[in-house]
Formats: sequence, structure tokens, C-alpha cells
Amino acid sequence: MGWGDLGAFGEPSKETPNLDQMAAEGMLFLDFYTANPLCSPSRAALLTGRLPVRNGFYTTNGHARNAYTPQDIVGGIPDSELLLPELLKKAGYTNKIIGKWHLGHRPQFHPLKHGFDEWFGSPNCHFGPYDNRDRPNIPLYRDWEMIGRYYEDFKIDLKTGEANLTQLYLQEALDFISKQQASQQPFFLYWAIDATHAPVYASKQFLGTSQRGLYGDAVREIDDSVGKILKHLQQLGISENTFVFFTSDNGAALISAPKQGGSNGPFLCGKQTTFEGGMREPAIAWWPGHIPAGGVSHQLGSVMDLFSTSLSLAGLQPPSDRQIDGIDLLPVILQGKLIDRPIFYYRGNELMAVRAGLYKAHYWTWSNSWEEHGKGIDFCPGQSVAGVTTHTQEEHTYLPLLFHLGRDPGEKYPLSFASEEYQRAVEHISGLVQQHKASLVPGQPQLNVCDQAVMNWSPPGCEKLGKCLKPPKSDPKKCSWPH
Amino acid sequence: MGWGDLGAFGEPSKETPNLDQMAAEGMLFLDFYTANPLCSPSRAALLTGRLPVRNGFYTTNGHARNAYTPQDIVGGIPDSELLLPELLKKAGYTNKIIGKWHLGHRPQFHPLKHGFDEWFGSPNCHFGPYDNRDRPNIPLYRDWEMIGRYYEDFKIDLKTGEANLTQLYLQEALDFISKQQASQQPFFLYWAIDATHAPVYASKQFLGTSQRGLYGDAVREIDDSVGKILKHLQQLGISENTFVFFTSDNGAALISAPKQGGSNGPFLCGKQTTFEGGMREPAIAWWPGHIPAGGVSHQLGSVMDLFSTSLSLAGLQPPSDRQIDGIDLLPVILQGKLIDRPIFYYRGNELMAVRAGLYKAHYWTWSNSWEEHGKGIDFCPGQSVAGVTTHTQEEHTYLPLLFHLGRDPGEKYPLSFASEEYQRAVEHISGLVQQHKASLVPGQPQLNVCDQAVMNWSPPGCEKLGKCLKPPKSDPKKCSWPH
Repeated sequence: MGWGDLGAFGEPSKETPNLDQMAAEGMLFLDFYTANPLCSPSRAALLTGRLPVRNGFYTTNGHARNAYTPQDIVGGIPDSELLLPELLKKAGYTNKIIGKWHLGHRPQFHPLKHGFDEWFGSPNCHFGPYDNRDRPNIPLYRDWEMIGRYYEDFKIDLKTGEANLTQLYLQEALDFISKQQASQQPFFLYWAIDATHAPVYASKQFLGTSQRGLYGDAVREIDDSVGKILKHLQQLGISENTFVFFTSDNGAALISAPKQGGSNGPFLCGKQTTFEGGMREPAIAWWPGHIPAGGVSHQLGSVMDLFSTSLSLAGLQPPSDRQIDGIDLLPVILQGKLIDRPIFYYRGNELMAVRAGLYKAHYWTWSNSWEEHGKGIDFCPGQSVAGVTTHTQEEHTYLPLLFHLGRDPGEKYPLSFASEEYQRAVEHISGLVQQHKASLVPGQPQLNVCDQAVMNWSPPGCEKLGKCLKPPKSDPKKCSWPH
Repeated sequence: MGWGDLGAFGEPSKETPNLDQMAAEGMLFLDFYTANPLCSPSRAALLTGRLPVRNGFYTTNGHARNAYTPQDIVGGIPDSELLLPELLKKAGYTNKIIGKWHLGHRPQFHPLKHGFDEWFGSPNCHFGPYDNRDRPNIPLYRDWEMIGRYYEDFKIDLKTGEANLTQLYLQEALDFISKQQASQQPFFLYWAIDATHAPVYASKQFLGTSQRGLYGDAVREIDDSVGKILKHLQQLGISENTFVFFTSDNGAALISAPKQGGSNGPFLCGKQTTFEGGMREPAIAWWPGHIPAGGVSHQLGSVMDLFSTSLSLAGLQPPSDRQIDGIDLLPVILQGKLIDRPIFYYRGNELMAVRAGLYKAHYWTWSNSWEEHGKGIDFCPGQSVAGVTTHTQEEHTYLPLLFHLGRDPGEKYPLSFASEEYQRAVEHISGLVQQHKASLVPGQPQLNVCDQAVMNWSPPGCEKLGKCLKPPKSDPKKCSWPH
């Protein structure tokens, strides 16, 4: 989902009444970022509070390459990483993930080995259509074992776009919340649905209900589901004890537009890029009785802050033996404070850009290669800013491209190198970069090696269902990351 | 001002609390249009309820050319046109225009000859800096006579952007409203300020207050002023008897960005074009006690509807001796109805595009010429959609370019000519076009002839102030309209 996909953020069909209401009752974040313009690294950053370059969710197979956890990935979340649910356990929380895990699907990476108590969802994306030949259909797990596969047992009709997965994930969330309320146990629910990801789907009752086509139907179903979750909390009388945060793991994938791609509002490009459209996210905090209604914050926020903020809410300290990139947003949310901190925009192993205040300095620019672009792979459709949305990797480390995101949110007008404003801002940001790089200890890259044999051929539980598939011979090689 | 310039419409700095509040208390129109992507024709359409091609506010000097009323224009609003204030007079209204008239500045076009009872403002744009040599500084009128000139008596500091004009226009509005309330007389106030037009200015107390630079300062001042006007109505106890509508006369002028140009949100291009960015406008209706708070409408609306709606509010009928393009929006505003009607996008003498429902068909595409574009005149900066934002005038009358504005608000993905959806929609729209063209009686074009001698050299009242300038010899010629 992109920044511009919600009515409250200016989507012109304005079809998200529940999320808009959530914003009206809570706090809207206008300057909130993911840690990476791609799903797996973004989700790894959320759960560890650390940049992907630290927690290992990046590749060194090529310079500045986006990488994630496809079915043939060998790596995943390292045991050495401390995940939010592992820490919350110490404060008595029951932790559940519903939806897409995406931090590795081999046995050692299973979410229940990393702090979650329950899981209902899938380990990877569900790119289809699959026929279980070249690659297996994605399994859906309940806790330790698979209970079926996407496309077989959990239908996604690629023609009509019909699938009731979001309804299953919604019901699972409502049931979990009811159970926790009944047992008076604190809980952390990570409702990490995969909807709006291509291939886009929605349940029957939402198909055709949006002005925006199938993608809009999916957004409406998510909006409706969030509304039902919030209402459920209120009806159970625990809304004033439950902190809820809504955001997305990367900007809308404009490459899937218009049928399967959303809106990044006035921002440049989309998913896969380190322009604002790739990394600025819709974000809403909700906690009736605590967060003043109708708040709007310009705090530079990050999905990694949800790690630190959640720990703070649980009365826990973040781990002190490692660098944590997230900050505790409670002073922002509860007292309206603004905390000075930069935003780092990474693509794989490269620091592409840095935002401090309203200034954003690009040290590298790249959308994708001319070769890919020539094949019609376009992360910035209809947008082309000379010297900015480049199709060769352009280095600007000695003279960063600088934008003022207040006057120019669309990153179209680099400031003059000769201006005083440029010099002052770049000097400040360069200091932040030096500091950042000096203390950076990159993690072991997890997204370098791929092997067809590690795909979801025979997940635990497959034998009970007669759904085990025979893996091919192991043949590990460097994963290919074209952009 | 552009569609994307208000917080309620997704401007990422969210600096328009008063207009956002106006929307929260009233009704937001998401699909509201001007009648022309330029100021004069748009304002002529608003006051006559008729398309510029009917009321004469267009040129035939070139094909599909934008035209307006610069100082050397010979034409203006024809006497044969019936303006909203002329009609409202019959129902006892006192009519005042504050701000930019822009319907011709020669004596016969004076607003007090066309139904207004009072005027405080200027006849034209205030492009500066002027030195009273090649062209006179724009006069500011109080009623029949000028009381000074922009830049001389009413300072605009082009270096700092400081000017207190919006404050003068605000105070004038508050005073007029007070006077009408005191005398218990109904009134029509056309608060047609020129702020946000380049050269952009703001009052001292607003300078530097926006994240968005000087343009944002001007938006904040307008927002503050609208808030003060609404509050004044409430304090005088007449808010429930006063219908207020906020909109803009064309999309943000991206050519003036980033320092002097605003935002058209997710829409394509800006002022001067018939893409959505040029003609879709922010629009808010407010009438406490009558309009349900928090309403959102997808009614296809037009500035011309303000003509018909205002007549309806005053209990008057629109003239029956001519074609009126505006419709009465009261059933939409008060009862939430949706009225089926097309939107026509004209550029000069050419019908460029038509919207019906969510479909928009382009019969002609043009941004501007290669020659102009080569000189850096760019109405779509950073945006380039192949075959759409063309730099030659492309005719598509036999096979219109069709967009679905719900799935593709940015007009980036023309529908396939071969699709059933295309054929169905184009057949429908073509019928509307035939009907429209068959009944069209173009007005005498007013914007063809220019003459240096007609500039504001010696407006009425100049002699009292010693501000008369000597006009050059009359030398009428065809105005040059390059785009």
C-alpha cells in the first residue's frame, strides 16, 4: 500500500472510511518511513528495530540491489537477532502473527522459533499461478504445521481476483483478541496480511465495490477489516488498553499499476526505489483515551520505531548489546514532542539517501537499468526527472543531490550546489552520514544464496495432508537480483 | 491553487487547518472542475454559468490556445451575458467583488456595470515588476475609481515576497459582511483574491511559517482568512443563513514550481492543460445547519454550477433564453443525490476532452509546443506520459484516448482500443459530444485583439491621485497565444 492510498492521505476516491476514522480518533503520521522499499527487509526491520544492513536482510551479490525472501532463498532471520515478540514474552505477552512472515521459510527461521506463540499465515509472497512443478504453491501454516496451500486449498481466482484470505485473517484476529481478552492476558498481534500485493485479490463481497478496480476492492476490504478489529476492541472494553498502529511495508508498486498497483500520492516513483514514493508510508496511531483525537505529526518516523515503542509500552528496555535504529515514539504520540533524528534510505548494501528535517540528500540515484527499463519494467511510470530517476547507478557522494521536501515533496527540483542553503544542509547531513557509517557493523548478508531445493516442497505437516512434494537436487547459487 | 494544496486533499505538510475544518463541517467535493485551465475564462464561466466558448472568453487566433485578459486585451465580458450578480439583484441581494475581476478592464467591462454594487480589487493579474513604462502597474479600484497601484501604493516586495494585500481583502470582506448583517440585507460576496498567483506574496506574519516556502505561506494566509470569514459569520449569527463555497479557478501552475507553484496531488500536469492537474479543483461547501457535517461527494461538479446553485438558493430561475452549463447542486449538497452530467474540457476553441462517470476521453492532447518546451516552459515538470503529454497537437477524434479515472487518476494508462470497456464508454461519450456540438452556439471570441493603448494607463480616478499615464498610440493586432 502506498502513502496516497487512504482517503485521509488524499486518495481521490476516498474509500477508506474506517482508516480515516481511525486517523480522526488517533494520530496521523505524515512523515513515516519504511526501512527498505521491499517487503522482507522492511518486515525484518520492524521486528528487530534495526536496519536491514544490520540484521542481515540484504544482499552483496550486486551493488545497491533490492532483495527479499523468495521461495528459493537459503537465508532468513539470524538466531542472533532479537525479535520484538521474544522480548515481549518477558513481560508476559502472548504473541501472534497473522499473515505473511517473510523472514525465511526454512525450519530454523519459523516464527515460533523467534518469539511468536501462534501463527496463521504464509511464509512467502504468493506470486502465482503455480502448478507445484517448477515451484510449490505457498503453504499456509497454523502454528508449526502447514494446513494447506494457496491456490489449492485457499483459492485465489486469478481471473476474477476473488479470494477470501483477508476474511480468514480477519476472523483469526478477532478470535485471538477475544481469547486474550477472556483470559485477561496481554497480547501482541502482528496482523501482517499480504493483501494488495500482486496478484491482488479481494473477497466476493468487496469485488467491484471500488471506483479503483480490484486494487481498490482489496484496499476497501483491508479498511473494513481494520474497522472491525477496532470495533471489536471497543466492544470487548479493551480499546483503552490496546495500542494499535497501521502502516505499510513499502510504497505502492507502481510497476503493477493501474490494475494491481496503488498510489503514492504526490511522491516520486514507488516500491523498489529510495525516492519518497518507495519508502514514505501511510501511518496511523490509535489508542482511545491516551492519544488525543485528530492529532497530526510531522515526526520523522520509521517502522523500526514500532519495535522500540512497543517495548516502551510493555515497560521493557530495548537490548543494550546492539545498535537499535528505532526510537520510542511515545513522547511524540502522547505529548506531541518532535524528536530530531535522520531517516536512512538503503537499497541493499548501499546508503542511497538520508533525510534530516525537511532536507533529503541523495548519495546514489537509480531506478533500474536501461536493460530492464527497455523490457517495460518501470518503477516510475509516467515520471521522469532528469538526473534523478536515473537508469544508471549515479554516484553523488561528493556532491549529493539535495531536495527540500516541504517545497518539493515530489523530488523534482534539486537545490543549487552553489546556494548557502545547500551547503548548510549538506554539511549537516554529511556529519550524520559519517557518524552512521563509523558505527555501522553490517550483519552477515542473508539474501545472497538461493537454492531450488529449499522451496516449500515439504513443509512440516505436509505428510498428514498428503501434500508433500519431492524437492529437486540441492544446487545452491548466488541469487540474481536485477534491481 | 491546486487540488492537492489542502491538507484535506492530501497535501503532505497539512497546513490548512481552517479549510480542513470547513470540510469537516461541510461537504468535500472530490470531482469538482473549473471550466478552463486558465483564470479569466474560468472566472467568466463561474459568473455566467456558461462555458467560455459560449460567453466569448476564448480565442480563435490559433487552434486550442489558452487565452486570458492581459492588460492589452481589447475584449471583455459582453453586455449580452447575464452575470450572477445581475440576476441576484432581482432578489434584493447586494453584490460585492473583492479581488481580481479579470473579465476585461476597459470602461464597458467594469464590474459595477455587470451587476456588482461594490468592488475592491484589481482588474488584471499583477505580473511584475512593472515600472509604468512598457506597461502600467495594475490599479486597485474601490468601486468606480482607482485608489492606487500595485507595487507603488500597494507594495509587493518581490525579494521577500511580502505584501499585505490578502489582509486588505480579508478586512474588506469582514467589513462588508458586518455591514450587510447590520442592515439585514442579503448579500453575495465574491471573494476573488489573487493570492497564490505568481508573483506569490504573503503578509509579514505568514512569511516563513510554512514548510512549503513562500507558496505555502500564501496558502496559510488564505486558509487563515477563510477561517476568519467563517468565524465572523458565526459570531454575527448568520452562518446558518449563509452558503459558502471554496474553490480555485485553475490547477496549480507547475511551471512556477517549486518556489511559486502548488500541488495537484496525484493528478497529471497543471494549469494550462486539460489533464486533471489543470482542471480538477479543491472544493468545499459549507452551510451549518443545512449541509450535514463531514460529507463527501463524487458529484461531477463545475465552477459553473455555482451560478445555478446560487440562483436556486436565492429562489431565482436561471435565464431561459440561453444555454446554461451549470447545474443546481442543492440536491447533491442537501440530499446527497448524484446527478449524471458530463464535464467538458476546453482549450480555447477546441473541445479537448470529456468526462462522463469515471471515464475521460481525450479528443485532442497537447501540453505545449516543442519550441516552447525547449525553452524550459514545462506544464508537466517531471511527468511525461508517452502519447498523452504530447508536444504536438495530437488529434484523437476518431479514436479517443480513454482513461478510467478511478483506477488511473494520473491519466497514465489509456485503455485498449480493442476492449469492450473502451467501446462501450467511448460510444456513450461520443453521443454526449455530438449532442453538445449540435447545440453549441459559440459566442463572439473576446480574446483575439490586443492593443497597448487599452492598458490601465489612465483608469477612472487617476487624475485625483496624479497617477494618470499617457497611453501609446492605438495599434490593435491579433494577440499572440503561444500555448
